[in-house]
Amino acid sequence: HVDEEVTLCGWIQYLRQDLFVILRDFSGLVQILIPQDESKSELKNAFLGLTVESVIMVKGRVRRRPEGQENKKMSTGEIEVCAESMEVLNTCRKLPFEIKEFVKKSEALRMQYRYLDLRSPRMQYNLRLRSQMVMKMREYLCNLHGFVDVETPTLFKRTPGGAKEFVVPSGDPGKFYSLPQSPQQFKQLLMVAGIDRYFQLARCYRDEGSKPDRQPEFTQVDIEISFVDQAGVMSLIEGLVHYSWPEDKGQINVPFPSMTYEEAMRDYGVDKPDTRFGMKVTTDDCSRVCALCCQWKLNMGRWRKWMIIAAFALCVVQEVSVVPVRADGSLKSPLSRLLSDTAKQQLLQMAQANAGDLIFITAGPRENVRPLLGKLRLQCAELLESYGVPVRDPSVFHFLWVVDFPLFLPKEDNPEMLEAAHHPFTAPVPEDAHLLYTQPRKVRGQHYDLVLNGCEVGGGSIRIHSPPCPFFSVLLVIRDVIAFPKSFRGHDLMSHAPDFVSEEDLKPYHISVVWPSADIEGQQDNSM
Amino acid sequence: HVDEEVTLCGWIQYLRQDLFVILRDFSGLVQILIPQDESKSELKNAFLGLTVESVIMVKGRVRRRPEGQENKKMSTGEIEVCAESMEVLNTCRKLPFEIKEFVKKSEALRMQYRYLDLRSPRMQYNLRLRSQMVMKMREYLCNLHGFVDVETPTLFKRTPGGAKEFVVPSGDPGKFYSLPQSPQQFKQLLMVAGIDRYFQLARCYRDEGSKPDRQPEFTQVDIEISFVDQAGVMSLIEGLVHYSWPEDKGQINVPFPSMTYEEAMRDYGVDKPDTRFGMKVTTDDCSRVCALCCQWKLNMGRWRKWMIIAAFALCVVQEVSVVPVRADGSLKSPLSRLLSDTAKQQLLQMAQANAGDLIFITAGPRENVRPLLGKLRLQCAELLESYGVPVRDPSVFHFLWVVDFPLFLPKEDNPEMLEAAHHPFTAPVPEDAHLLYTQPRKVRGQHYDLVLNGCEVGGGSIRIHSPPCPFFSVLLVIRDVIAFPKSFRGHDLMSHAPDFVSEEDLKPYHISVVWPSADIEGQQDNSM
Repeated sequence: HVDEEVTLCGWIQYLRQDLFVILRDFSGLVQILIPQDESKSELKNAFLGLTVESVIMVKGRVRRRPEGQENKKMSTGEIEVCAESMEVLNTCRKLPFEIKEFVKKSEALRMQYRYLDLRSPRMQYNLRLRSQMVMKMREYLCNLHGFVDVETPTLFKRTPGGAKEFVVPSGDPGKFYSLPQSPQQFKQLLMVAGIDRYFQLARCYRDEGSKPDRQPEFTQVDIEISFVDQAGVMSLIEGLVHYSWPEDKGQINVPFPSMTYEEAMRDYGVDKPDTRFGMKVTTDDCSRVCALCCQWKLNMGRWRKWMIIAAFALCVVQEVSVVPVRADGSLKSPLSRLLSDTAKQQLLQMAQANAGDLIFITAGPRENVRPLLGKLRLQCAELLESYGVPVRDPSVFHFLWVVDFPLFLPKEDNPEMLEAAHHPFTAPVPEDAHLLYTQPRKVRGQHYDLVLNGCEVGGGSIRIHSPPCPFFSVLLVIRDVIAFPKSFRGHDLMSHAPDFVSEEDLKPYHISVVWPSADIEGQQDNSM
Repeated sequence: HVDEEVTLCGWIQYLRQDLFVILRDFSGLVQILIPQDESKSELKNAFLGLTVESVIMVKGRVRRRPEGQENKKMSTGEIEVCAESMEVLNTCRKLPFEIKEFVKKSEALRMQYRYLDLRSPRMQYNLRLRSQMVMKMREYLCNLHGFVDVETPTLFKRTPGGAKEFVVPSGDPGKFYSLPQSPQQFKQLLMVAGIDRYFQLARCYRDEGSKPDRQPEFTQVDIEISFVDQAGVMSLIEGLVHYSWPEDKGQINVPFPSMTYEEAMRDYGVDKPDTRFGMKVTTDDCSRVCALCCQWKLNMGRWRKWMIIAAFALCVVQEVSVVPVRADGSLKSPLSRLLSDTAKQQLLQMAQANAGDLIFITAGPRENVRPLLGKLRLQCAELLESYGVPVRDPSVFHFLWVVDFPLFLPKEDNPEMLEAAHHPFTAPVPEDAHLLYTQPRKVRGQHYDLVLNGCEVGGGSIRIHSPPCPFFSVLLVIRDVIAFPKSFRGHDLMSHAPDFVSEEDLKPYHISVVWPSADIEGQQDNSM
């Protein structure tokens, strides 16, 4: 753009030596040269009167910077703009914090002045990246795959079961709307209605307080398809992620690897394994002993001792033994005296442990001890990272399908009984259907989760389409953290009529219904 | 596709003569040939056992229909599919109504069985058209014009003034969220935050009951831009409408014509004129007489008399005279005897009336009588159309900008006082700014409405950017029917902290806050 006349609007980032102004907008920074001639002293004085973060409009001419004055760290470092006129759109008084990446500010201050916090390059990048990714997803679904974007109502009826829902009082006494946990019921009805490929960037609500990965309202990519199978949905979603993946995050490969629920629980003690690092849970096939080998690998020097102490601390309330392996391969543990040499060798072999490693050993029912070791695995990774040992590369993205979930799991409060592992309309794997009434614990469901670096980012299932659910479709939901509503009521769902809510339902909100007093007032008027 | 093996899934539209099944999906209909050989009697019987609207999957081979059996009304009328196998995905029992365009059903029945109603080609077309138009709008804004799609929260604080808002009780006793009337405050803060081009397909809430053009929740294309002027926004929006306009609705031309508020009120008695037809309001420059000439044009034959009676009925409670013009040009009215021949000539000329026309005459302050005649103009159009006279072509789309709105209007309850015509942060037209304190009624605002066939489909304004509103931006909102929130509170808006709501605020909902009784129970325990 050298020699071009330009008009720039933006925020003042720096004022330098009465000579330069650095102007910022979302695309970056540019240097403005303040004129120094006597004839333009008015303009110069206007510039010198400016404060940082004021908003100005500058007209001027682009020129190459004098040789030796280029700034290679700046994408516009080879040019500058000679100001010819300037309008102050708004002046900025003192701000609660400077808009510079290196200025540390508390979370509370950032939230209080959210509109200033969003000026930072990092927040600008995040908001713009989200917008672009969502746009790409829409292109993929709408333009390339014939999906219909349908907006479903949010003032709805209560769904029994599932998460706690927000209620919204209607003007009708004693009647309330409910904000939906997900468009679950609407999208199933859309399948019945012949919208064979539905999607929505859907706002969902759960009245369950805020957690780092869960807010009262959140958005999910909500998909439902008729006439497909599990492989079809999985390849559609792989295509979706691949198509919308941001260029600056590196290439991702499709298809994603797949792991059964059984393998995930066996090797990682969790149904959403972080496969960026090893340290798998191992099991002795003959006994009920499970082990986790934390491979220090590096010579930890002076930190090693502290890390072992920290590892002991992790296990102190749990029935897990921590066994450091000495440089000569011997075990540094009271256990060492109790075990025969053969047993020690077996243990080292089972845990695939080497000199310098730390073995976590425990025994008990596998369904209990594996999840315990799975948690320890992640805690060890955090511990190592806190001492500067790289374990999980934050720049890589390991997508993983987890499939073949059990259709039923023992009830939490009564493990003798079974309940649907996900929702009660997940279809069984056809080959297992004959076991439904004889060995229900062995029946796998056509449910699949998408896991990224140990986070469940999506999940779905093939639904039962034989009566009483009169359709054949597939659900896939992608969001930061996922959960499924637990029930389904298939009638009169598209209407807006609010439901009656009992006093009992309102207790958590500390409100009660007041019957309108108009009639009583009317009687008073008559009596007077 | 002739001779290809195909798999089709869909709903059974018709069963014909034990020979054919017509299968429907969203893309249309196709004829399936039921095999008649003895060897395939099982398949034939399966077909014959089907009911209309059952869902099936058919595999078969496409073939050209025998000569003479083509159906030119059907887009697949030249082919049929010879069924080789068929799977019943679901059988349909008797439905409350048939899924055929010609079957009349009540609005209530359609709403009750919304998922069946949506199977009709018309509803499928509407849902799919909306999805496609919205997608095109996003492409235009995001991909072609650098807008950032930002999702703003819906669990928010109350905005004083404006429409009545829904409240949402939080778990915190006595504290409530409010569902926003529009993302107004968020988007203004996004401008402050440096998101210079924001848009959102925004869900908005107003607790004002349902009307045909207003529902408790609705969606608007919500836009805000920094560093632009009125002409810039108008051309952006013209581009948006042009880009996203559906092909099957014919070409629309940009730029759209523009009309000042004053012209609209003068000629049409309304700020959102339907410019598809004439019949303008006319004014005698010397007197306070205004007239509307309803040009019958056609020979109405036997209906003419009834229409005149209906026109009289329209005016009976209003101080409007209806004056039919006879074939010889004379006036058929008691007024005729009161007016001189010159006056009659002047009236005919003013109203541009011809033989056979109907003139509506009234007198009074123009700001009162013009809107009255404006309403009569639309009622006449309806009346003529109800008798089969084409007035407004439903297949044409007349977009129109209405500009130069007054910045202030007389208060409804106290016409001596002024209030902001739109919202209080609309900037004045710069040339009028000097009149702000001397002749405020003459000051025009930088506000613009987009009108389509007499409906306000969008509107926006240049905002005041000098303190106390520290930004420079532009609002444009497009939705079926528009209104603006009346106030703006510029602090602490991005946080989720619910606001305190008084008992007074809750009265319309017939609820009251109950203080938690846990403390009192604790005391009782102690005393026992």
